[in-house]
Amino acid sequence: MQRILLILLIIFLPLSVIGEMLHWSEVALFAIACAAIIPLAGVMGRATESIAIHSGPKIGGLMNATFGNAVELIIAFFALQKGLTSVVQASLTGSVIGNLLLVAGLSFLVGGIKYPQQKFNQTIAGTNSAMMLLGVVVALVIPAIFHLSNPSIDMSLSIGVSVVVLILYLLGLFFSLYTHRNLFNYTEDMEEEEAEWSMGKAITILAVATAAVAYESELLVHTITGVSETLGWSEVFIGVIIVAIVGNAAEHSSAILMAWKNKMDVALEIAVGSSLQIAMFVTPVLVFASLALGNPMSLVFSWPELAAMALSVLLINFLAQDGESNWLEGAMALGAYVIIGLGFYYL
Amino acid sequence: MQRILLILLIIFLPLSVIGEMLHWSEVALFAIACAAIIPLAGVMGRATESIAIHSGPKIGGLMNATFGNAVELIIAFFALQKGLTSVVQASLTGSVIGNLLLVAGLSFLVGGIKYPQQKFNQTIAGTNSAMMLLGVVVALVIPAIFHLSNPSIDMSLSIGVSVVVLILYLLGLFFSLYTHRNLFNYTEDMEEEEAEWSMGKAITILAVATAAVAYESELLVHTITGVSETLGWSEVFIGVIIVAIVGNAAEHSSAILMAWKNKMDVALEIAVGSSLQIAMFVTPVLVFASLALGNPMSLVFSWPELAAMALSVLLINFLAQDGESNWLEGAMALGAYVIIGLGFYYL
Amino acid sequence: MQRILLILLIIFLPLSVIGEMLHWSEVALFAIACAAIIPLAGVMGRATESIAIHSGPKIGGLMNATFGNAVELIIAFFALQKGLTSVVQASLTGSVIGNLLLVAGLSFLVGGIKYPQQKFNQTIAGTNSAMMLLGVVVALVIPAIFHLSNPSIDMSLSIGVSVVVLILYLLGLFFSLYTHRNLFNYTEDMEEEEAEWSMGKAITILAVATAAVAYESELLVHTITGVSETLGWSEVFIGVIIVAIVGNAAEHSSAILMAWKNKMDVALEIAVGSSLQIAMFVTPVLVFASLALGNPMSLVFSWPELAAMALSVLLINFLAQDGESNWLEGAMALGAYVIIGLGFYYL
Repeated sequence: MQRILLILLIIFLPLSVIGEMLHWSEVALFAIACAAIIPLAGVMGRATESIAIHSGPKIGGLMNATFGNAVELIIAFFALQKGLTSVVQASLTGSVIGNLLLVAGLSFLVGGIKYPQQKFNQTIAGTNSAMMLLGVVVALVIPAIFHLSNPSIDMSLSIGVSVVVLILYLLGLFFSLYTHRNLFNYTEDMEEEEAEWSMGKAITILAVATAAVAYESELLVHTITGVSETLGWSEVFIGVIIVAIVGNAAEHSSAILMAWKNKMDVALEIAVGSSLQIAMFVTPVLVFASLALGNPMSLVFSWPELAAMALSVLLINFLAQDGESNWLEGAMALGAYVIIGLGFYYL
Repeated sequence: MQRILLILLIIFLPLSVIGEMLHWSEVALFAIACAAIIPLAGVMGRATESIAIHSGPKIGGLMNATFGNAVELIIAFFALQKGLTSVVQASLTGSVIGNLLLVAGLSFLVGGIKYPQQKFNQTIAGTNSAMMLLGVVVALVIPAIFHLSNPSIDMSLSIGVSVVVLILYLLGLFFSLYTHRNLFNYTEDMEEEEAEWSMGKAITILAVATAAVAYESELLVHTITGVSETLGWSEVFIGVIIVAIVGNAAEHSSAILMAWKNKMDVALEIAVGSSLQIAMFVTPVLVFASLALGNPMSLVFSWPELAAMALSVLLINFLAQDGESNWLEGAMALGAYVIIGLGFYYL
Repeated sequence: MQRILLILLIIFLPLSVIGEMLHWSEVALFAIACAAIIPLAGVMGRATESIAIHSGPKIGGLMNATFGNAVELIIAFFALQKGLTSVVQASLTGSVIGNLLLVAGLSFLVGGIKYPQQKFNQTIAGTNSAMMLLGVVVALVIPAIFHLSNPSIDMSLSIGVSVVVLILYLLGLFFSLYTHRNLFNYTEDMEEEEAEWSMGKAITILAVATAAVAYESELLVHTITGVSETLGWSEVFIGVIIVAIVGNAAEHSSAILMAWKNKMDVALEIAVGSSLQIAMFVTPVLVFASLALGNPMSLVFSWPELAAMALSVLLINFLAQDGESNWLEGAMALGAYVIIGLGFYYL
């Protein structure tokens, strides 16, 4: 697995530089940038993990909870700078539904092929499902519906809601890392892990990989419009499906591996935790960043995006509320993902 | 009970033929067709049951899961042929909410009058509620919302979604009949049942009854427009309430009987299983049939229909998630049915 | 606590009379009326409680279930008389979300600061959550969506739905006071309470306080338009947030006190029971009263109001479905309340 990622990296990172210099077609450059980001995201995840292990559980948990989606943040940053706010909203949507339906669905399916029934901690699933309802549904439906009644209000409301959501995300970290630490006892498994790299090496790798991701993200964002025109795919479809899968590939592989090892709590934590991080940390941070960049992005998402996210949250809650999963539940989540993907394809 | 059905059959089946020859009023013919379809649907259900018992649990389960709503399928087929796509969508809506609210509600209420608290298998209820959210809500809300944003996409998206939903329905059968058979152990009760009729007799009865239902359905569909004009009821109201009750009368009586015997698992399986069959088997099959008939019916239902179905699914999930029922829960489901019925009446 | 209320009363009740005579500014009169209603509502609650204890559990339960929100009813009555139907709908919305998010949220938070985990009866929470879905979501979404499709139908449909909802509310009382009394065994704690006042004294106090509340409500309603113009707050914001908090202040303080004593069943019953009473008793009664007053108020609420109520019901259900609460769940409910409040502020 690690070898494959390394090979991808050695091939596609230099290839993207060469391709850009030789002015290859935008579709080719887009594909190469995607192929380079996937292993880079993996390397960044592993470096963050190593730093987290060296820093102890609390600082480490905080690091994972803030830097865990650095790739999405970087891609979105460049897209915002280029004024592609609707691509950013699409890729945020895609990350939320991709983590909830694709990552959790594949975990349920792959794990369910090996084990007839897999169990996970119901208390955490319950807290998380309420948090998702709040961070994904309430925080996005309210601006959209109120914007419908009074189209002049979006940015002020979006800023206020972003502040509330960010505070709740931090309170959620305080809950899981301090006051109710014992509930999340599966994290002890993580603590026993040894760091892959020394602190210094991990920081160096993280810095280099971040720089490379920034380069590739810039290339990816730069070529989206051309890809959209050449292939006839809308920018929203590219954002919701392609960019989101590329940005979350690392989460996909780790969650599925955990499901295969019957560690469903960890698999679900990756899927749901990553969704929450996108909705409650990355999204508000991008709202603030968009103001600084002069291309304000509000929390008013399109109705198809809202429906996709709200239905994903409801479905995962229905699937998770009994604390058990099986292969059919995985197939349902994947089926919902395909239905939503078809919708964005034909949009 | 069986005697009453037989009497209904002997009276109304010939009466409808006579009435049509003598050109009776359309309201009279509509009422007679309804009165004839109810016992015919009962006979078809019992013949299917006998064939299922003779065929063994797996083939039998498959038969029940596909022929169980043959009457709706036949009525809808004639309505599609006449181009009444909105009546078909209305009667599909009516079947889903009728099974969820009216059948389950009456079962909870009637059973709850006899027993203070009735229990049912929570795992199955959970799987079913996720399946309903997917097959009813996701599969219909996505086409409707995406159609709102881009009105030119409906049929291609509807076909794609129908394929996904049909595959998931078949996977659900594979789950309940093969890989997770043991979860559904109440089906063993069913297996111990003796077949009412021999295989040959059951097939003969099924064939004759199907032919008679086809005749009556054609008559019913033919008279809907006239009934609508004479009584001042909209075609949608007739489809949602009248046609749906007529088409599902057999399910109503068996489910209530099971609730009275405190077999709530079977009662719920009839109500929820029938809804799932309508949403995930009959509906996609009709989408494909509508293309063949040249009167394409998309999955874009009206907002009142969507709201009625989505709220029914949510309410049944809220009622069923604790694995227990009582008479008040039955009254709530019936109350919701009346509220929705009033809505369609005044529409 | 009682002393503070008494002082408030002694100051603000005469002050409002003086202020009105001296034609103080409308903002001042509005604030004084609010400050007078809060202790009056508390006194009325305690008098009702005393009468309920003297009357025995059944009549007492019925009294609490019908007179428990007398203050809201009186305020709404004067607003209806003045033709401010949208202010009435706003204050009903505000009472529902205030009880669900603010009262329950503060109870979870305050209780959760003292106890890491608080438990409550899951069966009651389940029945209540289905009842809220029915009384708040189904009963209000159906008129709104059907009104969208056919704008001429609202009053007839609203009357029909109001009748159904009122019947279900009465059936719910029959359920909790008669047929399934044993489920609600925490009410026995209440029965052991001693009445604060004798029957005669309680009735006298209730009558005097009701008259005073009527006076203050009239003043409050009379000054809303002026306050709205002076402060630049919309009448809907005043109705949803200010009037609702004033009208429910008594519930707030008792629920939080109960949470602090770890009696979460009672705290939740106050929050959820009060919401149900507003939605399923006060709202239909006001629909009928509005017809009598000649200023018909339908059940067609605005989309922001509907979204706020539906999301509150869903969130509370997600939070309560595991039968446990903690401080983070309280923070989530309060966060949702702030988000919704911001929405109405900017509307």
